[in-house]
Amino acid sequence: MLANIRIVLVQTFHPGNIGASARAMKTMGLSDLVLVNPRCFPDPEASRLAAGAEDLIDNARVATSLAEAVEDCVQVVGASARLRSLPLPHYDEPDALARELVQNATTDPVALVFGRERFGLTNDEIRCCSHQVSIPANPDYGILNLSQAVQVLAYETFRAWRRLPENHFQQPRPAGERQPTREQLGHFHDHLSRVMRQSGFLTQPHARTEAQLQALFARARPSRKELSLLRGLLSALEPSSPDD
Amino acid sequence: MLANIRIVLVQTFHPGNIGASARAMKTMGLSDLVLVNPRCFPDPEASRLAAGAEDLIDNARVATSLAEAVEDCVQVVGASARLRSLPLPHYDEPDALARELVQNATTDPVALVFGRERFGLTNDEIRCCSHQVSIPANPDYGILNLSQAVQVLAYETFRAWRRLPENHFQQPRPAGERQPTREQLGHFHDHLSRVMRQSGFLTQPHARTEAQLQALFARARPSRKELSLLRGLLSALEPSSPDD
Repeated sequence: MLANIRIVLVQTFHPGNIGASARAMKTMGLSDLVLVNPRCFPDPEASRLAAGAEDLIDNARVATSLAEAVEDCVQVVGASARLRSLPLPHYDEPDALARELVQNATTDPVALVFGRERFGLTNDEIRCCSHQVSIPANPDYGILNLSQAVQVLAYETFRAWRRLPENHFQQPRPAGERQPTREQLGHFHDHLSRVMRQSGFLTQPHARTEAQLQALFARARPSRKELSLLRGLLSALEPSSPDD
Repeated sequence: MLANIRIVLVQTFHPGNIGASARAMKTMGLSDLVLVNPRCFPDPEASRLAAGAEDLIDNARVATSLAEAVEDCVQVVGASARLRSLPLPHYDEPDALARELVQNATTDPVALVFGRERFGLTNDEIRCCSHQVSIPANPDYGILNLSQAVQVLAYETFRAWRRLPENHFQQPRPAGERQPTREQLGHFHDHLSRVMRQSGFLTQPHARTEAQLQALFARARPSRKELSLLRGLLSALEPSSPDD
């Protein structure tokens, strides 16, 4: 599905922006890059800024018009910082766009189109789009750098894709420490209560203090290893008593 | 509230990344930038990539340690591409982080901390944080460029801020064409029905076809100007009849 989502960069001026956009795409699982009349491509600066995404640069296709770049697509969304000049259907929120784009991409190619650094898309190019999208931004300074705009929309697209249950996406996580059982937690809290009484901090059973501390440790969610550490500390603090 | 949200860049290697981060911040309404031991600052490359955000560069403060940079903050969130090495509370989703960060920022300063380009934050620096956050990414290539990570988290922060009703945020929109009244739409659909009958396309009243076309035009949401255009076209198509 992500393979059906094409990023089209129209007449990009700085080759570095092509590289940075390729990297942004790859971090979000996108791979299909089409360049319409790039000023300077291939270019070492594009490859340098692609960092680990040179494969996208190597596989990028060059088209001579936007119409050619998107002719097989069922949805073509122009990203525009400028107020829309043609009344195309307009997404005010990138997440709304991303959900629809990902749906359409289950069966057919779709495209996200980014215009020139200085002056975006021409009206003729906007006519090649079926929709437009804006990234909500500071009204006083709302112009994202080209590759930053690619990053934000790719991030939203990847999120919409991740959230589809059929993709079974799970972010890799560290194995992490095992969680303690309820019984192990119970032993810890019994130990803590005993130490509090023996130390004279609690002179009589005081359920409220104990409940507060239980809640605090519940929020901290100690692992088994951390619980052992705490019990070791409690043992060390425990006054040695004849019946121990 | 946004003024309470600080971006801290730790020992940034490339001054261009400082500039691009400043620009990313400004597009999302953030302004408080602190640099911990930047390798090279001030630097013309930082100012060049800041584009319209040189004011953030000019006002950036330089600190000699992360602890110093965040000592007045009530929440300090380390952005980390690497798997977490200390079991700090961890946000797996930037939007969850953004909602809490914006809540905390209503009363106190908070910080988002970004480590070095190559190797992130040291364990000592992670200990200065209260939380960590990761940007979900391609498991095969998940390393965002520094300023791209700033852009994504700033975007989420700005969204969380925009969605608080008390901020009354509204994206500036073009004035746009006036919408037609229900009566004007009714005249248009009457006209269309008349033309369809007169042309022989509909030989008898056919409510289903008319309803389908009404739904189609409702989705297209024509402006008054566009409706006039359509009515002009209908008039031109209308066979002239004796009673016209």
